[in-house]
Amino acid sequence: MIDKLIKSIELKQNPTVVGLDPTYEIIPSFIKNEMLETYGKTPKAVAEMFLKFNKEIIDETFELVPAVKPQVAMYEKYGLEGIRAYIETCEYAKEKGLLVIGDIKRGDIASTAAAYASHIEGTHIEGEFFDLWNEDAVTINPYMGYDGIEPFLNACKNMNKGIFVLVKTSNPSSSEIQDLTVDGTPIYKISASLVNKWGESSIGNCGYSNVGAVVGATHKAIGTELRAYMPNTFFLVPGYGAQGGTGKDLVNYFDKNGGGAIINSSRGIIGAYQKDLSNEKDFAKASRQAVIEMRDDLQKGGN
Amino acid sequence: MIDKLIKSIELKQNPTVVGLDPTYEIIPSFIKNEMLETYGKTPKAVAEMFLKFNKEIIDETFELVPAVKPQVAMYEKYGLEGIRAYIETCEYAKEKGLLVIGDIKRGDIASTAAAYASHIEGTHIEGEFFDLWNEDAVTINPYMGYDGIEPFLNACKNMNKGIFVLVKTSNPSSSEIQDLTVDGTPIYKISASLVNKWGESSIGNCGYSNVGAVVGATHKAIGTELRAYMPNTFFLVPGYGAQGGTGKDLVNYFDKNGGGAIINSSRGIIGAYQKDLSNEKDFAKASRQAVIEMRDDLQKGGN
Repeated sequence: MIDKLIKSIELKQNPTVVGLDPTYEIIPSFIKNEMLETYGKTPKAVAEMFLKFNKEIIDETFELVPAVKPQVAMYEKYGLEGIRAYIETCEYAKEKGLLVIGDIKRGDIASTAAAYASHIEGTHIEGEFFDLWNEDAVTINPYMGYDGIEPFLNACKNMNKGIFVLVKTSNPSSSEIQDLTVDGTPIYKISASLVNKWGESSIGNCGYSNVGAVVGATHKAIGTELRAYMPNTFFLVPGYGAQGGTGKDLVNYFDKNGGGAIINSSRGIIGAYQKDLSNEKDFAKASRQAVIEMRDDLQKGGN
Repeated sequence: MIDKLIKSIELKQNPTVVGLDPTYEIIPSFIKNEMLETYGKTPKAVAEMFLKFNKEIIDETFELVPAVKPQVAMYEKYGLEGIRAYIETCEYAKEKGLLVIGDIKRGDIASTAAAYASHIEGTHIEGEFFDLWNEDAVTINPYMGYDGIEPFLNACKNMNKGIFVLVKTSNPSSSEIQDLTVDGTPIYKISASLVNKWGESSIGNCGYSNVGAVVGATHKAIGTELRAYMPNTFFLVPGYGAQGGTGKDLVNYFDKNGGGAIINSSRGIIGAYQKDLSNEKDFAKASRQAVIEMRDDLQKGGN
């Protein structure tokens, strides 16, 4: 995963990840009306809205970005039909050559964690293999420690898939647990140290591990601190744009070669068309433009 | 949720929760063969196995227990078909008058947490209301703090649904983060204090809140400590049986009236038939017997 991701970032000269987190509100009204007419006021209508919306955005951006990150919660809201839209979105992105980071933030123990690991490891049924989720990497919650991570490590190492473990999230109340200090060391740094250890056995040719970390864009000093502390850990950085982060703030999240991190933006890209609703039909082109602006902002950040 | 749960526990004189965590391995071979013949080596076959297995166990136990707790990971392993089996299991349990605790351990922030909250709050589409997951309560991860909890609190308070927040999980490596101490106070106790606060506004007539806590059966001293520290917080206790906990160990997880906690067992109940494979067809009756033995063990615990 990690070597492929880094190669794609270099090829496209862009560490931007498109957060495919559709909401009912963000869907352009012409798509909304079409699906409501065809499928009624049903979860299936919303699933079809999400699919059409996502596919057009993927079509306009896949040549510019290395990866997409669909947030499964947005799809779970619409039950089984929503999950179908999630899986089909992942499949479509994969077909377009994009890496798919499933933002699922799962975390559980033992046999349960092993079951979740099938997100990236696939599932065997009587010798037949199924890749049912089409994800290359997923996000994971570390609250339960190694028991929750271990089943994923095999998939990282043997199948060249990836995980991004929550270390420091971008939200304000992340401080309630993550910033507490144990003998002077904050919890996020203890999580970081665990992630360093968990990732040791799956470091790729590029020097980074398939076990990455989620480090929010909204904590500049912590990003700088963790970059130095986690030299082999690739960062997935949420919180750009809508949550307040800018290219300038993120300079220190990258390594000295400008690598080591991908930056996610969701609303800033998929909702870009809302700045000028007269061109609603061109919503995907507005997303493309937002991706270009974000790429330029991130490149400028280093200068 | 909480008043209804407590009433049902009292009626059935049993705080046992049946963990509906099917695996491919635990399915009796006659069901396996039937579904493989009908649907081939497919995720649909496994989904149908899980459904038939779960429904028979529910049929044999619903009069004896207040609730079931399906673990969504086991179903996610089989993709969209697996999720269908999860949702239909929840629906079937609900029809039988059982409370459904979805063991989903979700945790995210802001609009994402709000999307996850639809598990218990339901979903509106153009004025139409859908309860797509059929859960009365779900488990939640507190790593991101209040931002991840807040959207659920409305559902707890206004819709009388519930959450159980992970405080101290039953697995060995739970110590890696949860037992770290901040100025002498362990993280699990800080989580406990947050849960106490988050639950204040939805305490039912019974004195317990719709915001409960997950406290593993495998840490007897911590269970005792937290029972005293969280007088208005109902406990969901995993780790009985297969993970090592017994009725005697759990006495102090209950309040002085023998209430305040439900005890989950998964493999010990749904895999009970494996002790005598000659009666495979009676697997659900073996589950019924295991529920009765567990109830008696828990009742005896107090004496």
